[in-house]
Amino acid sequence: MSKILIVYASVYGNTKKMSEAIADGVKTVKGAEAIIKTAEQATLEETAAADALVLGSPVHMGSPDWRVKQYIDKVCAKLWMEDRMVGKVGAVFTAGGGFGNAGGGCEITLLAMMNNLVELGMIIVPLPKNTPGYDKGGIQWGPYGRTMGEKMEQTGITEERMVAAHYHGIHIARTVDAVKGKEIFSGRAEKVLQK
Amino acid sequence: MSKILIVYASVYGNTKKMSEAIADGVKTVKGAEAIIKTAEQATLEETAAADALVLGSPVHMGSPDWRVKQYIDKVCAKLWMEDRMVGKVGAVFTAGGGFGNAGGGCEITLLAMMNNLVELGMIIVPLPKNTPGYDKGGIQWGPYGRTMGEKMEQTGITEERMVAAHYHGIHIARTVDAVKGKEIFSGRAEKVLQK
Amino acid sequence: MSKILIVYASVYGNTKKMSEAIADGVKTVKGAEAIIKTAEQATLEETAAADALVLGSPVHMGSPDWRVKQYIDKVCAKLWMEDRMVGKVGAVFTAGGGFGNAGGGCEITLLAMMNNLVELGMIIVPLPKNTPGYDKGGIQWGPYGRTMGEKMEQTGITEERMVAAHYHGIHIARTVDAVKGKEIFSGRAEKVLQK
Amino acid sequence: MSKILIVYASVYGNTKKMSEAIADGVKTVKGAEAIIKTAEQATLEETAAADALVLGSPVHMGSPDWRVKQYIDKVCAKLWMEDRMVGKVGAVFTAGGGFGNAGGGCEITLLAMMNNLVELGMIIVPLPKNTPGYDKGGIQWGPYGRTMGEKMEQTGITEERMVAAHYHGIHIARTVDAVKGKEIFSGRAEKVLQK
Repeated sequence: MSKILIVYASVYGNTKKMSEAIADGVKTVKGAEAIIKTAEQATLEETAAADALVLGSPVHMGSPDWRVKQYIDKVCAKLWMEDRMVGKVGAVFTAGGGFGNAGGGCEITLLAMMNNLVELGMIIVPLPKNTPGYDKGGIQWGPYGRTMGEKMEQTGITEERMVAAHYHGIHIARTVDAVKGKEIFSGRAEKVLQK
Repeated sequence: MSKILIVYASVYGNTKKMSEAIADGVKTVKGAEAIIKTAEQATLEETAAADALVLGSPVHMGSPDWRVKQYIDKVCAKLWMEDRMVGKVGAVFTAGGGFGNAGGGCEITLLAMMNNLVELGMIIVPLPKNTPGYDKGGIQWGPYGRTMGEKMEQTGITEERMVAAHYHGIHIARTVDAVKGKEIFSGRAEKVLQK
Repeated sequence: MSKILIVYASVYGNTKKMSEAIADGVKTVKGAEAIIKTAEQATLEETAAADALVLGSPVHMGSPDWRVKQYIDKVCAKLWMEDRMVGKVGAVFTAGGGFGNAGGGCEITLLAMMNNLVELGMIIVPLPKNTPGYDKGGIQWGPYGRTMGEKMEQTGITEERMVAAHYHGIHIARTVDAVKGKEIFSGRAEKVLQK
Repeated sequence: MSKILIVYASVYGNTKKMSEAIADGVKTVKGAEAIIKTAEQATLEETAAADALVLGSPVHMGSPDWRVKQYIDKVCAKLWMEDRMVGKVGAVFTAGGGFGNAGGGCEITLLAMMNNLVELGMIIVPLPKNTPGYDKGGIQWGPYGRTMGEKMEQTGITEERMVAAHYHGIHIARTVDAVKGKEIFSGRAEKVLQK
């Protein structure tokens, strides 16, 4: 059994919908379990117990919501200190309006979260451009749920814009299957959690 | 008289069109001259003589065309060594298909060029979101000429997608007016070009 | 009179020391006032009243402290919505251990904050490499106060590591002098704060 | 047998030394072969035949050498078009002076190359902080061979600064062992090379 922990922040519910689309994809993979938590809920124990950590955030001022960073600083930083996430699987996703027809800042938002996962020593799952639904909802770093149309009309995240997120979930669970239990990193698991 | 040097690479002519839209904006500012060069043409002397350097590139694999980087490495690196671009004005722009509805990699492309300008010690002009035309053609780092529609049909860069680029040219020329000749940086102009 | 607002987060006091070094530089410029606030203190009114916003953070997991992002999301986002920071001056700084002899994540930390300032439509002041003290305390994006030596021994931020920060303050205040009151951006000041 | 292709550019030989340190690590893993090519040598066929692509560059103006980008644009872009690198393993490394005590621009240099690999749809191997030698030669994105001391004296890349690179090679080869031949990405290998 592999555990995929999806941690997100959401204001209007769009990033929440994206997290559910990813979880739906995860669940189609045999033996994979998806756990969804908000950035304010997710605990150190849950994070340490996960085989994969998937971070999601709306685009806020071109970077992740402060609550995602609070989770990184308060929960993940302790696990970083003890190298407890090394060799696990990491991935990211986002949602936002897309003002400017250029992603509206989604790229640096995704990159910022990926940077945090890379700091943790995690193996990163990208979103290849031949993923089903990529044309409607993604860039190289991960799925992007665009919530507005080109004329800035509110559309919400349509079904077709969540297809790539669904497949991202599948890819993540399969990557866990491939790397879990393998001896990859030299220093892995050399340290244990201390009070 | 202020000189705004626009250096670009282009394959299908879209980034070239963007460079012309910026130049048109520059020319509306009294006393401002726009010089457009390809990355392969632009010389050290032209670059050193400019009051502003504006870099443009198509999105290629999520980053600038190699010819733009060649210009940075072969021409600008010498000026960097001698601190000759310090305190001048810098800005960036790009063009690309937009596959994925998320800017298609334009954000890191713009950022990569801005990073090179920041290395040169240049004062950076952003693209504020209240710039006319921003909704059709830009993100925070600069104008983005999207060349395809949401269904990935070839549209080319339409007129409305170049409006922000036009204003970017105006903003750049005005910033030059504001900072040119001012004593801002401590080490400015302390070194001269040596053979 | 120009107002330079320095907003920072600090855990061990190193970033605080950096903010004071920048403020000391600001104060050497005639007519320039430096105001230092923590990210939790700084209000919307103070931010709106400033001519320059300087953001500082320790390197936490390769990106800014969550409290800096909280300030961006809760305070600056409102000013972004109303375009009230457009055309003002922005700059960044950081502090951190430097584990790995490669800046320890300072570059993306600085970039993340600069990205937020660029979203606000601010003119960016870099740290040119000929700035006094650059060799001991900075990269292109801004000053970096390294708090440990190459052997990871705690050194704190020494005086020589704050020289670049001092000059950064001078450069910021001088850039405000150059651009303040100038008509640069097309949409500047078109909107006013609403209750 | 797995093939790890290391593609680099080098001016003074430092990045070349780093590529050899990585290759030495690769070779300690049973069944793993390391192939080293310069960015100007590496062909489409060699790249397509590799199980892992490792990119290395000196820090030039805060980003990769133009020849690395030329390789990306001329060779890898064709493979991207046909999704032929999807699901393979990617990793990065760099070398540079370190002026400023802040990595000297190595972080964005590494990130730029990683971005290209992510565009290709590759699974990314980070450099966890508990990797032997991390304290002397790396950040989260990968190994960094610092070529100068804190006083900017030329030191070249010392042995101790290449230890992390050696282990990076081991980690990359082991990740290939874990993911090679696994069905991870939905669209993988759906297309074939066309003339």
